[in-house]
Amino acid sequence: MCQLLGMNCNVPTDICFSFDGFSKRGGETGDHRDGFGIAFFEDKGVKLFLDSKPTIDSPIAEYIKTHPIHSLNVIAHIRKATQGKITLENCHPFIRQMWKKNWIFAHNGNLEHLVPTSNGYYSAIGDTDSETAFCDMLNRLYGEFGNQEPPIEILARKIRNISHEISTFGSFNYLLSNGEFLFCHCSTKLTYIVRQAPFSNAHLIDEDITVDFSLVTTSQDRVAVIATEPLTDNEIWTDIHPGELLIFNQGQPFPARY
Amino acid sequence: MCQLLGMNCNVPTDICFSFDGFSKRGGETGDHRDGFGIAFFEDKGVKLFLDSKPTIDSPIAEYIKTHPIHSLNVIAHIRKATQGKITLENCHPFIRQMWKKNWIFAHNGNLEHLVPTSNGYYSAIGDTDSETAFCDMLNRLYGEFGNQEPPIEILARKIRNISHEISTFGSFNYLLSNGEFLFCHCSTKLTYIVRQAPFSNAHLIDEDITVDFSLVTTSQDRVAVIATEPLTDNEIWTDIHPGELLIFNQGQPFPARY
Repeated sequence: MCQLLGMNCNVPTDICFSFDGFSKRGGETGDHRDGFGIAFFEDKGVKLFLDSKPTIDSPIAEYIKTHPIHSLNVIAHIRKATQGKITLENCHPFIRQMWKKNWIFAHNGNLEHLVPTSNGYYSAIGDTDSETAFCDMLNRLYGEFGNQEPPIEILARKIRNISHEISTFGSFNYLLSNGEFLFCHCSTKLTYIVRQAPFSNAHLIDEDITVDFSLVTTSQDRVAVIATEPLTDNEIWTDIHPGELLIFNQGQPFPARY
Repeated sequence: MCQLLGMNCNVPTDICFSFDGFSKRGGETGDHRDGFGIAFFEDKGVKLFLDSKPTIDSPIAEYIKTHPIHSLNVIAHIRKATQGKITLENCHPFIRQMWKKNWIFAHNGNLEHLVPTSNGYYSAIGDTDSETAFCDMLNRLYGEFGNQEPPIEILARKIRNISHEISTFGSFNYLLSNGEFLFCHCSTKLTYIVRQAPFSNAHLIDEDITVDFSLVTTSQDRVAVIATEPLTDNEIWTDIHPGELLIFNQGQPFPARY
């Protein structure tokens, strides 16, 4: 299996604190050693960093930790291979383009015997169930809506339905973003926290680091952090229910759960 | 205008020496300050680094220079904006997927009043003529060949024809790669060198650095470097002719000029 980390905010925020703890699980406090990746939206553009090395040995991971990148939507992934070789093309997150936007996707779970129900433009480059599922989702969305992106409510409903169908093949926890919304689907395990004023201290589980968010935020800031397992031990994380698609926008769930 | 740098090899090679000189043109020996990008193929995967900062101020560029990445195909670009804002989504190289492969593209030139002749699934995210031309090429290739990648000779002929047609809108120097072949189209300015045994010294134009390639190579190694302008002042660079599509594979022109 793998682990997921996502962030969605109302002001560009860096993810260094969360990534610090998360990256320890890539070989130190966790055994997710088969590569990692992290994608930062900057407006419509994406900075995507991938490495087939474990985070604890990767100079790119070290760069990420020491060079804050401010973003409204971030998706990170550390890999423990279930299907697919340990190669760069099998590292998450994956990137594709649809409706004049970049789409970023990372998956935790295992979809045994996944059979894509669609046949379209999008096809996997590597040999993971995850990339195959992502391409299947995009083919079905593009097949349904063509060149015109639908309103978010309609899009969300369709994504939820596709996710339920793909979930019949196995566990399908994922993070998906188009730079505006962060779609979080829980199949077995996904949890989140929304940090907003009044901000307080947070202490990492995987490393003895504490940050006082009140010193680095304004009263308007709002940041949602989503992860496979909680990253801090002195805050209350909320589990997303199995079968639920939770969508974040501007640092909070939008507009309701699907 | 912009500047291009490409590399195609028969063994994974790092581009640090060439990128050292090239990156100086992003604000020091040249005024290409409007962002940069560099893509390294690792098998079917791609490490793509983009920044809307000039290379001389970019910590990502510094990372590239100090952390050698070995690759068979590399495409780099420093930008001087003619069309499109200075934003991440307008930085080259651009990435798309076709025929279960990543495709990487960077452009030097200006295509005024470019009118895409195709309408398909590939569309530009930013507002550059370059990304629009790239998407137009892919739409036309996909429209012609569908889901089946044709043999290289047929593909090359089609790419050449498309390139000639797009060139009627302006200058269209570009580098394009699918991880196996490096397609280099010269419209006004593009030059290359093939380094192979017996290797000797090379001295950069943009910086007083010399490398003795005989110390870092084996007798079987072969490396083609392609650039808008020569990077070294003690080697003989060969100009690609305007209107010519030159394809590199395994570090040498393949199999003939198109």
